[in-house]
Amino acid sequence: MVRVGILGATGAVGQRLIQLLEPHDDFDIAALTASSDSAGRPYREAAKWRVDTPIPESVADREVAATDPDAVSDDVDLIFSSLPSSVGAEVEPAFVEAGYVVSSNSSNARMESDVPLVIPEVNPDHLDLLEVQRDERGWDGALVKNPNCSTITFVPTLAALTDWEIETVHVATLQAVSGAGYGGVTSMEILDNAIPHIGGEDEKLETESRKLLGAFDGAELTLNDMAVSASCNRIPTLDGHLENVWVETADDLSPEDAAAAMESYPSLDLPSSPDPFIHVMEEEGRPQPRLDRMLGDGMAVAAGGIESTHSGLQYDCLSHNTIRGAAGASVLNGELLLDRGYL
Amino acid sequence: MVRVGILGATGAVGQRLIQLLEPHDDFDIAALTASSDSAGRPYREAAKWRVDTPIPESVADREVAATDPDAVSDDVDLIFSSLPSSVGAEVEPAFVEAGYVVSSNSSNARMESDVPLVIPEVNPDHLDLLEVQRDERGWDGALVKNPNCSTITFVPTLAALTDWEIETVHVATLQAVSGAGYGGVTSMEILDNAIPHIGGEDEKLETESRKLLGAFDGAELTLNDMAVSASCNRIPTLDGHLENVWVETADDLSPEDAAAAMESYPSLDLPSSPDPFIHVMEEEGRPQPRLDRMLGDGMAVAAGGIESTHSGLQYDCLSHNTIRGAAGASVLNGELLLDRGYL
Amino acid sequence: MVRVGILGATGAVGQRLIQLLEPHDDFDIAALTASSDSAGRPYREAAKWRVDTPIPESVADREVAATDPDAVSDDVDLIFSSLPSSVGAEVEPAFVEAGYVVSSNSSNARMESDVPLVIPEVNPDHLDLLEVQRDERGWDGALVKNPNCSTITFVPTLAALTDWEIETVHVATLQAVSGAGYGGVTSMEILDNAIPHIGGEDEKLETESRKLLGAFDGAELTLNDMAVSASCNRIPTLDGHLENVWVETADDLSPEDAAAAMESYPSLDLPSSPDPFIHVMEEEGRPQPRLDRMLGDGMAVAAGGIESTHSGLQYDCLSHNTIRGAAGASVLNGELLLDRGYL
Amino acid sequence: MVRVGILGATGAVGQRLIQLLEPHDDFDIAALTASSDSAGRPYREAAKWRVDTPIPESVADREVAATDPDAVSDDVDLIFSSLPSSVGAEVEPAFVEAGYVVSSNSSNARMESDVPLVIPEVNPDHLDLLEVQRDERGWDGALVKNPNCSTITFVPTLAALTDWEIETVHVATLQAVSGAGYGGVTSMEILDNAIPHIGGEDEKLETESRKLLGAFDGAELTLNDMAVSASCNRIPTLDGHLENVWVETADDLSPEDAAAAMESYPSLDLPSSPDPFIHVMEEEGRPQPRLDRMLGDGMAVAAGGIESTHSGLQYDCLSHNTIRGAAGASVLNGELLLDRGYL
Repeated sequence: MVRVGILGATGAVGQRLIQLLEPHDDFDIAALTASSDSAGRPYREAAKWRVDTPIPESVADREVAATDPDAVSDDVDLIFSSLPSSVGAEVEPAFVEAGYVVSSNSSNARMESDVPLVIPEVNPDHLDLLEVQRDERGWDGALVKNPNCSTITFVPTLAALTDWEIETVHVATLQAVSGAGYGGVTSMEILDNAIPHIGGEDEKLETESRKLLGAFDGAELTLNDMAVSASCNRIPTLDGHLENVWVETADDLSPEDAAAAMESYPSLDLPSSPDPFIHVMEEEGRPQPRLDRMLGDGMAVAAGGIESTHSGLQYDCLSHNTIRGAAGASVLNGELLLDRGYL
Repeated sequence: MVRVGILGATGAVGQRLIQLLEPHDDFDIAALTASSDSAGRPYREAAKWRVDTPIPESVADREVAATDPDAVSDDVDLIFSSLPSSVGAEVEPAFVEAGYVVSSNSSNARMESDVPLVIPEVNPDHLDLLEVQRDERGWDGALVKNPNCSTITFVPTLAALTDWEIETVHVATLQAVSGAGYGGVTSMEILDNAIPHIGGEDEKLETESRKLLGAFDGAELTLNDMAVSASCNRIPTLDGHLENVWVETADDLSPEDAAAAMESYPSLDLPSSPDPFIHVMEEEGRPQPRLDRMLGDGMAVAAGGIESTHSGLQYDCLSHNTIRGAAGASVLNGELLLDRGYL
Repeated sequence: MVRVGILGATGAVGQRLIQLLEPHDDFDIAALTASSDSAGRPYREAAKWRVDTPIPESVADREVAATDPDAVSDDVDLIFSSLPSSVGAEVEPAFVEAGYVVSSNSSNARMESDVPLVIPEVNPDHLDLLEVQRDERGWDGALVKNPNCSTITFVPTLAALTDWEIETVHVATLQAVSGAGYGGVTSMEILDNAIPHIGGEDEKLETESRKLLGAFDGAELTLNDMAVSASCNRIPTLDGHLENVWVETADDLSPEDAAAAMESYPSLDLPSSPDPFIHVMEEEGRPQPRLDRMLGDGMAVAAGGIESTHSGLQYDCLSHNTIRGAAGASVLNGELLLDRGYL
Repeated sequence: MVRVGILGATGAVGQRLIQLLEPHDDFDIAALTASSDSAGRPYREAAKWRVDTPIPESVADREVAATDPDAVSDDVDLIFSSLPSSVGAEVEPAFVEAGYVVSSNSSNARMESDVPLVIPEVNPDHLDLLEVQRDERGWDGALVKNPNCSTITFVPTLAALTDWEIETVHVATLQAVSGAGYGGVTSMEILDNAIPHIGGEDEKLETESRKLLGAFDGAELTLNDMAVSASCNRIPTLDGHLENVWVETADDLSPEDAAAAMESYPSLDLPSSPDPFIHVMEEEGRPQPRLDRMLGDGMAVAAGGIESTHSGLQYDCLSHNTIRGAAGASVLNGELLLDRGYL
């Protein structure tokens, strides 16, 4: 069993991490950290547990530590991090310098040239950027990132279509409130409403997608040169990001070929990788957040409504933003790190 | 005062028509029709009044007639119609043949070559297609259509940009449940959910927009040759359709020029035409359905988030789907018909 | 394995019945019925499957039969029924006359003097009313009812307090939309709204509760003489009925004693009876529908906020209305029928 | 024109106060205060304007002052206060000592024996407690309170029934999120959910109602001796508190008499007092928050579903919590102060 710690364990993604890691066969929760207000208190008191399964007994009475390498035991082998990006930018390098391997969901550093940004089913080879990272930074540990929740939703479907050479992508998102954390969206902002803006989100989809589908030659990562334009919206759903995607490819691509490519896109032989990875739904009006977000225990991507347009293809896709798009993404990266010998 | 009748007066749009027409200075409600179940009953009983202002006293006790030209008095000069398209397709021609002028919100016949599809601020000259219609069909009356609620939202913003020669448009919609009528979307379908499909809606946006921005030479109407691709979603909002738009133009178009063109796009000197017609909002995250749908008493269009993309422009726009997008659209067409001497 | 049939298998409760029965160790789904429109079609087509787990393969292609004893095979031993009460009133007696044992969720006949109305943990002895029923009606089969979903929520908590002699009960309900079936509440009725009336519901709580807590002497059932007054509200939640309860008892009852009585209220040794049956929550503001409806796999009742008032006790309680309150209630009654030798 | 100031002008109730006071015939907005973060900034920047009408031009550029008597000009005659209770407890006495008349919506000091707690239509005579207040405290100014939003909803209906001698009241509330202010309820707390607890709220209904219906003999106020028990719930509505009420009276009271008493309960001749004050609705399922909260421009109370129970009466009532229940309540108290010569 790999001993793991969770940075930011009391937040929305932190709670999901506990929910996923507690029954995990390979990982054993050995440390929980939070902000200094919570440090020293039992987890049960420090966190307002809001996940839809009861708080695990093994975690409830564990004392929360400060988010500081000195406060975490040395025999922890793997750190999952879900911190506000400003905190992550400061704290994560400290953990890595102290020798920890960090699988992080925080948005800081995702686009740095020596930081692997990984969806295991999509670009597992990018993990070897860690060699470059260690060389350049002199770090013992390692820092791996998973992308933003809304990036994770559409990139797998694009990954299935790269053989046709993607030139342009337009993507509109309908994002759930949990993506902003427990206090991120107030009820008065979102009831009977929608907000056509999420700070910094458009850019994350536009840049992270090009890094994920970029080429890594062992030394350097080159961004994919497709042009991506995103428009992000918050809507009154709890979980599950739905996205409308338009793709133009250099080679002719029929809806049938696209569906077949998505359906046959391979899963990975890791505990949290679902099979199938991408569900292609034929019923009109699917996928839908409430009905389809738990496919593959929340780790699958769903696609549907695949059609031709005047100059390409359009379709809809969906994933569970706090499982596949956040906590589950980090756990899966942890499993990849273990599988590839980085632990 | 022009004496007006309302076909389909008990439905969601019918109730809005009554709300708008009852205080109207030029129109006097003289007839209400509904399906045969309701005919003969007082309106108060036939309709389950659900608009947010009380049912007008002058209407409450009026007897509902059958939706049939023989059941409507000859001294009615103008008919507003909001019927299911299958009913409209059958009934509206009968009214026009009987000599009535019909301003219709129903979706049937919108794309027929001799039926004017009009947003008064956008293409008032298309109204003269009525001459062609009368010639061809031998009708005494006239049939004018307003477009679909989701078409009305984005076409005004495009109309402001035609000087730059629009080539392609991508539009994703976040549509309110009222667009489907009172019983159209069940609560179990939409609470904590979104549905990436509205039957027939994508095509309406794609074709109606090209007709509205088409050229009419007095004899024939040529569709605009821009390519439009739409992806329509239903979300849990009550009123107000929000849309994400991407536009590519032949000539270079900056966000500033686009904003200026929208802001200065002229209103019309008709009672229900708001001034300004298009509100350009600079605050991030606007327009929003709940906050902005009542601009211009629900008759204005709002736009915001105007930005450059890799190959054009993107922005968001909004209008009130049952006022500007339906009942108010028909009333405004009625005002145009009056102004241009068709009554 | 007991071969079971489901009447009304395509509706909201019917789908839940399939979800619960398909993996059941004692029951084997052998027949599905629906209205004549659906009869003869494969279940996959006849039902619009909307439960949050995929449609079971074993059910998807089964042909739906008409809701008629002649259309159901004789080797079916137990019928679960979830029909509109008007249909149930007509069809259920026909099934029982034909010799079937029927565990019904439909609201017809619940208050008839020879029909057992049963929550197994609360009044299992009432099941023996079936002897009276058979005697009086000359039936080979049997008809057992579970109560209304909102009755099931608060009656278990009252059952725990009967030692103190309940005199009066006031109960206000906050009920989820699924209680009205898939099409029962439109989105325009309930978004940003609440409705302080559910047709016939107040009376169901007031009378069914007195029958459930009534005394059965082997021959006759006497209603409990507590006075119950209910006020029922529909609110915009998907699943889970929350109720505010005030109880006045003849003997002094402290919040602590009430909590202890609820917590120790026994579960039953039947597969679907959860242990504990009643969860007493100490955290302020619990139970809540979204967080607590799945306790005990949706079969538990939760209570909280227990406090003294000027003249008694007040508390809140919750159960999952389509599992414990409907489909699961019928399944549990089926398990009781099997356990007590009625099958 | 009376020159007025608003303490806490940037909050949810503060914005409503501006919306109501800006067009007011007797009041002229002369000062706006907020916390020290906002002081010195133009209102447009300090407040995130979220009311459904545009920010008044006359207010947008006004500089926000600190919430301190020294920061407010002496020629302000009347102060409206909507502050967190802890801030109000500290700041309001300072304003009154400095000579200002304060009409406050803040919850501090409501139950103090020399502070009038007033709903003008219900207990205008209590205003003369101000004489006692001035005597006891040696204040030049005056402090008047309006009750909690959920108290205001049901007390007017009780006031109409006092002739029958009310003995006990049970009330369950279904409260809108705006009652907690803009950030008070997060979307993750309330979407698809309800919360059966609002901190301190039960007690407010139980005590404030007895003060409002208490007797003032010119020297001392005696609480009404009815027993009130409240159970408060938060639900996913934006505005409008709906309440289920049970009343037991010493004298027999029929639903018809109760309805007649409510309908004929007099309005006041003050600008913001609506006529009728209480709307009695006969349609089943009314009043409803979304449909009925704006009756009387948001200042009326609606009642419906009046029925007999085993030992009394039950009914539902509704008012707009941020208009009649907060900002409008304070404005109306200001009008009463003006009318009775306290300004």
